[in-house]
Amino acid sequence: MELMFLGTSSGTPTRARNVSGLAVLAGQGKAWYLVDCGEGTQHRLLRTPLSLRQLGAIFITHVHGDHCYGLPGLLASAGLQGRTEPLDIIAPAGIEAWLISTFDLTETHVPFPLRFHATPGLVTGPPWSAAGLSVSATPLAHRVPSYAYRFTEAAARPTLDRARLAADGVARGPAWGALMRGEAVYHQGRVLTPTDYLRFGQPPQCIVVAGDNAEPTLLGQACEGAQVLVHEATYTQAVACGKEHHGHSSAATVARFAASAGLPNLVLTHFSPRYQIAGRPGLTFEALRAEAAAYYNGTLILAADYDRYRLDKAGQLQRVGSEGGSL
Amino acid sequence: MELMFLGTSSGTPTRARNVSGLAVLAGQGKAWYLVDCGEGTQHRLLRTPLSLRQLGAIFITHVHGDHCYGLPGLLASAGLQGRTEPLDIIAPAGIEAWLISTFDLTETHVPFPLRFHATPGLVTGPPWSAAGLSVSATPLAHRVPSYAYRFTEAAARPTLDRARLAADGVARGPAWGALMRGEAVYHQGRVLTPTDYLRFGQPPQCIVVAGDNAEPTLLGQACEGAQVLVHEATYTQAVACGKEHHGHSSAATVARFAASAGLPNLVLTHFSPRYQIAGRPGLTFEALRAEAAAYYNGTLILAADYDRYRLDKAGQLQRVGSEGGSL
Repeated sequence: MELMFLGTSSGTPTRARNVSGLAVLAGQGKAWYLVDCGEGTQHRLLRTPLSLRQLGAIFITHVHGDHCYGLPGLLASAGLQGRTEPLDIIAPAGIEAWLISTFDLTETHVPFPLRFHATPGLVTGPPWSAAGLSVSATPLAHRVPSYAYRFTEAAARPTLDRARLAADGVARGPAWGALMRGEAVYHQGRVLTPTDYLRFGQPPQCIVVAGDNAEPTLLGQACEGAQVLVHEATYTQAVACGKEHHGHSSAATVARFAASAGLPNLVLTHFSPRYQIAGRPGLTFEALRAEAAAYYNGTLILAADYDRYRLDKAGQLQRVGSEGGSL
Repeated sequence: MELMFLGTSSGTPTRARNVSGLAVLAGQGKAWYLVDCGEGTQHRLLRTPLSLRQLGAIFITHVHGDHCYGLPGLLASAGLQGRTEPLDIIAPAGIEAWLISTFDLTETHVPFPLRFHATPGLVTGPPWSAAGLSVSATPLAHRVPSYAYRFTEAAARPTLDRARLAADGVARGPAWGALMRGEAVYHQGRVLTPTDYLRFGQPPQCIVVAGDNAEPTLLGQACEGAQVLVHEATYTQAVACGKEHHGHSSAATVARFAASAGLPNLVLTHFSPRYQIAGRPGLTFEALRAEAAAYYNGTLILAADYDRYRLDKAGQLQRVGSEGGSL
């Protein structure tokens, strides 16, 4: 799976960072998935190879404007670019009504079907799924209902260890099919155990992308077996102090959780615009990084717009480049 | 008055051009005015000296998304940047309901009052006015109600010709006040006529900014005495052919009107994304310019994003620079 960051600022854009948007490249084929769609997301996409015609689905974490105000324009542009395929939108209550009201009041015709799925359905019911991918949701703590989405690629089917079958004298035949189905087989006077003959590949890749959230520990179950957590770290602790009612996390809070959950990769994003590359003491990205690094020893990444990362077969997140240019 | 173009593409943004937005710097003080607010207008403003705290009013020409989808984010950001002053929004029916619905469904609090004025009121009633500026509206022809806004700066007050008063022996006194009020004065046995003693400066500056419009001739009255018309020229005639139902103008249509109206300056904008700097034959900005120039001999400008123009005292529109950078 790959991640391409389209916006990493909270609340309002800066010259270098747009409001929230993240492309997840996962599953089979050329489809990609968008998590959140702040204003200007479609402008960011113009500087990437991603096409609105191959967008597989949109996941919205919560209704705040910096996470969804880019939706109407992106959908209208997808229509102008010739999209006719239906598009799934997985979102909390409010987004469907808002889009319908928006297209109605602005007399906009979107020439492809929008299929809405309420996010709570992915919490309690079956996950949303596409070829080679399934997505479930976890409720978070914020001023409005907010969710994390867990992207899990389908596990590769196991393969038969043909060399061992040959060595044990098990010729191609009904026994092979039974072993593939996980059934024990009585063969020439002995029992063949499927796990002796099946070879499993890497465990399925799994990335959790969280919306705005004041309590990372709510993600304990969602992060089991996940290789990556993408989570907001809006402030350092010093700045967050007294702002708990805003419903955000500090770098320290997230890092402590990621360490306790044993996550191999942690990506921080959604930074308050007060943080700058060269800011006042304590108001730099290095201050955010240092705060997280004090608690977390895994691969720690502070996301920047256009950065692209790939989750390799060893479960390590590797930077594979940066698309685009300035805002 | 000055114009700063924030978006000059129609329908959908391109890498070089955003959707519609135009800053008009007019009137007294540091106030500026925004005509249309496509998605990403606030991102453009980050690369100009213009502040959302000094935005004097917003004028929307029509409800289509490429002219208004940037409004919710721009207003939310103005609040985050500390604006508390009320803001006037002059817009056709639909915009007020859409913004109220948007802020409601996305639980967004804008911490300053929005004062809505329905555009038709500026057609039949008194103009909208601020210190040193008045704005009236004219209905256009498009698929939805669309309007042009005429920005007129208040005429400078006339001054007394003191040299002539001295030569004619009219000392400072009640006669001066009467002449300033435009009243004839009986003075030492003769009648003093006010126009003999009043000196008028330049005629007031006047710029007409039109929304999407298939019939430029509707602007005949609005353009009387105007020095500048800013009008869409979405296509060349060859491309426009058969697209009349889309409600847009070709470069030729607009140029013919501007010539017949005797307008000294014509600015074309809102170009179809099919036009590129180096495009297929006929699909270049030079093709648009050549088509307009065949009909119009005045100062002809094809707007580009970030271009800034000043209307000088002689009534000529002069390029005074280009702000910002790429999209």
